[in-house]
Amino acid sequence: MPDSQALDLQAILDDIYTALSPRRGEGKVADYIPPLARIDPKKFGMAVVTIDGQVASVGDAAEPFSIQSISKVFTLTLAMGKHGENIWRRVGREPSGSAFNSIVQLEQEGGKPRNPFINAGAITISDLILAGHTPREVIGEIVRFMRYLANDEDIAIDPAVARSEAATGFRNSALANFMRSFGRLDHPVEHVLGVYFHHCAIAMSCVQLARAGLFLANAGVTPLSGHTVVSRERAKRINALMLTCGHYDGSGDFAYHVGLPGKSGVGGGILVVAPGKASIAVWSPGLNHNGNSLLGSLALEMLAQRTGWSVFGA
Amino acid sequence: MPDSQALDLQAILDDIYTALSPRRGEGKVADYIPPLARIDPKKFGMAVVTIDGQVASVGDAAEPFSIQSISKVFTLTLAMGKHGENIWRRVGREPSGSAFNSIVQLEQEGGKPRNPFINAGAITISDLILAGHTPREVIGEIVRFMRYLANDEDIAIDPAVARSEAATGFRNSALANFMRSFGRLDHPVEHVLGVYFHHCAIAMSCVQLARAGLFLANAGVTPLSGHTVVSRERAKRINALMLTCGHYDGSGDFAYHVGLPGKSGVGGGILVVAPGKASIAVWSPGLNHNGNSLLGSLALEMLAQRTGWSVFGA
Amino acid sequence: MPDSQALDLQAILDDIYTALSPRRGEGKVADYIPPLARIDPKKFGMAVVTIDGQVASVGDAAEPFSIQSISKVFTLTLAMGKHGENIWRRVGREPSGSAFNSIVQLEQEGGKPRNPFINAGAITISDLILAGHTPREVIGEIVRFMRYLANDEDIAIDPAVARSEAATGFRNSALANFMRSFGRLDHPVEHVLGVYFHHCAIAMSCVQLARAGLFLANAGVTPLSGHTVVSRERAKRINALMLTCGHYDGSGDFAYHVGLPGKSGVGGGILVVAPGKASIAVWSPGLNHNGNSLLGSLALEMLAQRTGWSVFGA
Amino acid sequence: MPDSQALDLQAILDDIYTALSPRRGEGKVADYIPPLARIDPKKFGMAVVTIDGQVASVGDAAEPFSIQSISKVFTLTLAMGKHGENIWRRVGREPSGSAFNSIVQLEQEGGKPRNPFINAGAITISDLILAGHTPREVIGEIVRFMRYLANDEDIAIDPAVARSEAATGFRNSALANFMRSFGRLDHPVEHVLGVYFHHCAIAMSCVQLARAGLFLANAGVTPLSGHTVVSRERAKRINALMLTCGHYDGSGDFAYHVGLPGKSGVGGGILVVAPGKASIAVWSPGLNHNGNSLLGSLALEMLAQRTGWSVFGA
Repeated sequence: MPDSQALDLQAILDDIYTALSPRRGEGKVADYIPPLARIDPKKFGMAVVTIDGQVASVGDAAEPFSIQSISKVFTLTLAMGKHGENIWRRVGREPSGSAFNSIVQLEQEGGKPRNPFINAGAITISDLILAGHTPREVIGEIVRFMRYLANDEDIAIDPAVARSEAATGFRNSALANFMRSFGRLDHPVEHVLGVYFHHCAIAMSCVQLARAGLFLANAGVTPLSGHTVVSRERAKRINALMLTCGHYDGSGDFAYHVGLPGKSGVGGGILVVAPGKASIAVWSPGLNHNGNSLLGSLALEMLAQRTGWSVFGA
Repeated sequence: MPDSQALDLQAILDDIYTALSPRRGEGKVADYIPPLARIDPKKFGMAVVTIDGQVASVGDAAEPFSIQSISKVFTLTLAMGKHGENIWRRVGREPSGSAFNSIVQLEQEGGKPRNPFINAGAITISDLILAGHTPREVIGEIVRFMRYLANDEDIAIDPAVARSEAATGFRNSALANFMRSFGRLDHPVEHVLGVYFHHCAIAMSCVQLARAGLFLANAGVTPLSGHTVVSRERAKRINALMLTCGHYDGSGDFAYHVGLPGKSGVGGGILVVAPGKASIAVWSPGLNHNGNSLLGSLALEMLAQRTGWSVFGA
Repeated sequence: MPDSQALDLQAILDDIYTALSPRRGEGKVADYIPPLARIDPKKFGMAVVTIDGQVASVGDAAEPFSIQSISKVFTLTLAMGKHGENIWRRVGREPSGSAFNSIVQLEQEGGKPRNPFINAGAITISDLILAGHTPREVIGEIVRFMRYLANDEDIAIDPAVARSEAATGFRNSALANFMRSFGRLDHPVEHVLGVYFHHCAIAMSCVQLARAGLFLANAGVTPLSGHTVVSRERAKRINALMLTCGHYDGSGDFAYHVGLPGKSGVGGGILVVAPGKASIAVWSPGLNHNGNSLLGSLALEMLAQRTGWSVFGA
Repeated sequence: MPDSQALDLQAILDDIYTALSPRRGEGKVADYIPPLARIDPKKFGMAVVTIDGQVASVGDAAEPFSIQSISKVFTLTLAMGKHGENIWRRVGREPSGSAFNSIVQLEQEGGKPRNPFINAGAITISDLILAGHTPREVIGEIVRFMRYLANDEDIAIDPAVARSEAATGFRNSALANFMRSFGRLDHPVEHVLGVYFHHCAIAMSCVQLARAGLFLANAGVTPLSGHTVVSRERAKRINALMLTCGHYDGSGDFAYHVGLPGKSGVGGGILVVAPGKASIAVWSPGLNHNGNSLLGSLALEMLAQRTGWSVFGA
């Protein structure tokens, strides 16, 4: 395996960009809300930030996009900071084995979501973060956390996306009401969904996102500031959850082809962690049949092959 | 993270053995066939074999036990050798998200098993290995493969276990007939089940099992002989499948707590791979609620903590 | 079979009352809202109204109780009056084969409820009745329809029940939002649920209820006024729906033991139709494991035996 | 409603035949076994036998066809004769609410079939009839029962159909093995399936079938001989089961449109009971999407309209 220092990451990204450019526009752009449906399907950005400070990027890597479910990694991190291992009384940590927002499993399992990365689980995490706070306070806290991690004060919520999510989020409203009917939410449904819809509407660029995820590649310490975000043990555990549950019903496939922990979003972004090496973010709006970025997944598979980065062996 | 060379693995195993000894007998021993029900629940063995040749073991590590579903890792390896990536036309690679031999998902997905490690998937793998051969030939091939990997000619099938499996295997017979009804088996149900029941009845000790799995920790090459068993890429992929699907509906939990690819069996054994480091086998018959060895899982979590071995970060 | 005229219905009801009195209080009273939980579990009333004008009653037959899901028979009748057979584009007419408010089937079948008597189906019926009207108008229309059918201006909605339903109806809110997410509701969720919660909160006595259902026993004509409520054909069809779907997952059992079309409510009431003979209502708050009145079901079985009334043979 | 005596049943059948003739061949003929796939899709027969001895028939009413699942009415009758109400410990009596041979519900409910008319339930009934007998004896008993009911010694099993069923019955074999795995069969799977496959392979004409079912229309007494086959009460209960469960996932639809208890078979036959009036059989091989005879269902709806026969009101 090539040494991380010796890799010419910029050259690798350039190659990937060149190889995939003819396919830009493939996949199906999410169209359940207008602000996402309007995104140019040919957008493509990718950024790698190594734990020793290298940054490589290509394409639209500096352009903010809607991170959507990728935000669930960070709200999980916040919830673990507030409640520790107690959060597992409220949400499981097993792959869901079915469509990403299916309500069926919730019924079978008494309203306890399978893991924190399916919608129902992330809504539960929002409920957990709310403890003792108003939705406004919690939304502010999440945004500040993202800015702190990425070391970038420009990160913000896209209000048009947040509004659209709220106006059409009948399925998430069904999930929240359903969990409430099992007595599994502590706060009013509207408050919980308010937090959820807003953190999904955060806009970040690939570079910002890769920076924000770097603590997970670096044993819990963000190399940008030297601050410890989470313990070494917790960083590993969040990576484990990303690997087993990070890509809806395509998690096994992603582990098989890419071999790195990651979390995808319906906006076409994927955040990936190469432990001990780097944090990577990719953005391409067209999705595959599992709801994960089609070209983004391919780009990450190419990157893993070129760098040799894999958690499953050198 | 401590250097693998510098670890006193024997001391670590001794500590684990001492710490868990008071709990020996905990968990529920599989009782669906008499040969398993008769096993002494206080048995406990553990072995670590490193890629550079160290061997450490403790307790009943030299006593053969029924490897059961752990054999599925090796039949998968054989099937990939024969059919390559074509096997994915017949079986998926996503976590199942439900009890290990549930027939429900099979109905929903037209008879295609979710992954090669649930019973239906392993039965499909048996069907794939049968191509052009008799059950007797294939069973012999599997046993020879295990002997070759472990470099030990003493490995054999326990005929009493194989007979019991066949005599009471109504659920597996249901699964096979069900897949056949969808046109998803090429060979007669009895032939396929004959292969399946026999490879599940292989008896091996922890030391033998750890040796047999070493190629997965060593980029596909078995260090015992220097032979390449599978390509570097395929070794990584088999590890990925073990991590996402290796412990039935406890795979997410195992990844979270142990952080290494593994495969458990209802006989109380677990095989674990620390890529680039070692292969580990543990045996303790008492099972937890997910059907995985209760003390075995704990022992592996302790080993991972002491060694720092984890695929999710140093 | 005894002639309907010759039956001493009052004596039969008296016998049933005497036989079941020692068991009053059995079953589990619905406790999901306080106004229902407070009901005296020993209440028991029963009324029979024949198409030729006989009325027999016993116990608490004149005391109003919350008719709950029995109202679904009447909102279905209204919806068929407004939309005719077109309603079947929006709701099925097959038994649900699972718990009465399960959300699972709804997911599997794209948000189309199985029949108009499960909660999701009745919510759809509320949406259909709303066409072109406000919730207030529609609620008024339903109450007037009940008064007209029962020929009794005293029938009203219990406002405490309606408020409680709305305050705790998270599961129904989940169902409505879920259907909305499939594009299967025309009106805002709150409007639809407003209608639904109010018609479930109608309070009626056994005598009033038996009178209101009489048109279904009399080929669509209410003998009280001679008015035609629905066509002969439609009366038969509503009876068919009651028989196959009227008692949640106990419909087959009810058909087997009672043999007459009926609809139960979680308030402990059951309305039953003996075509060509009579309309019967019973009230006993304790429910069996299927959510149907325990003593009410037994009382109806006894009545069917004594009268010989059954749709399945003399 | 017209008096049964006054109806010109032959004229009504002639009208139905004329009206439906242009549509003969519609629907999808069952093709899972060659003997059924070879049937001329344009076959159409219908017979009505009244309890007072009238017989009317039309088309291919005298030609034997494979009665398939219609036989389940008669094996249920035999099982109730042997075990009485105890059979309900082994099988439920609720509509299944899903595809006719789905294995899912069986998993959810611990291997207990929902009702005696789905495949799993009928296999259980075969197991119950076997008590103390060989498959050969029981198959002989079923055939003799059919001959006795129809008063016709020519009724026999079609050996080609029985062989084909056995050779391709993987799904039924899955169901039987599945139930066996839950401990829910008393006899070997092959014995139980032997009985099941043979009674499904009985061949009868519409006239024979209508005669055989007449006891259900006549309070349990077969008017042909005056013998009591079952009690009045049991006849009603079997009719109730046919109405709620007789047409797979189209039972509600059949009750809605035809309004009479009935049982369909995949060979295109339907047996219908008009209590107190007549027994009716129809045969047309093309099936609708629920697996019930397409033209047969329409013919019965027309018959019900013309005669006014309905259990749901005059």
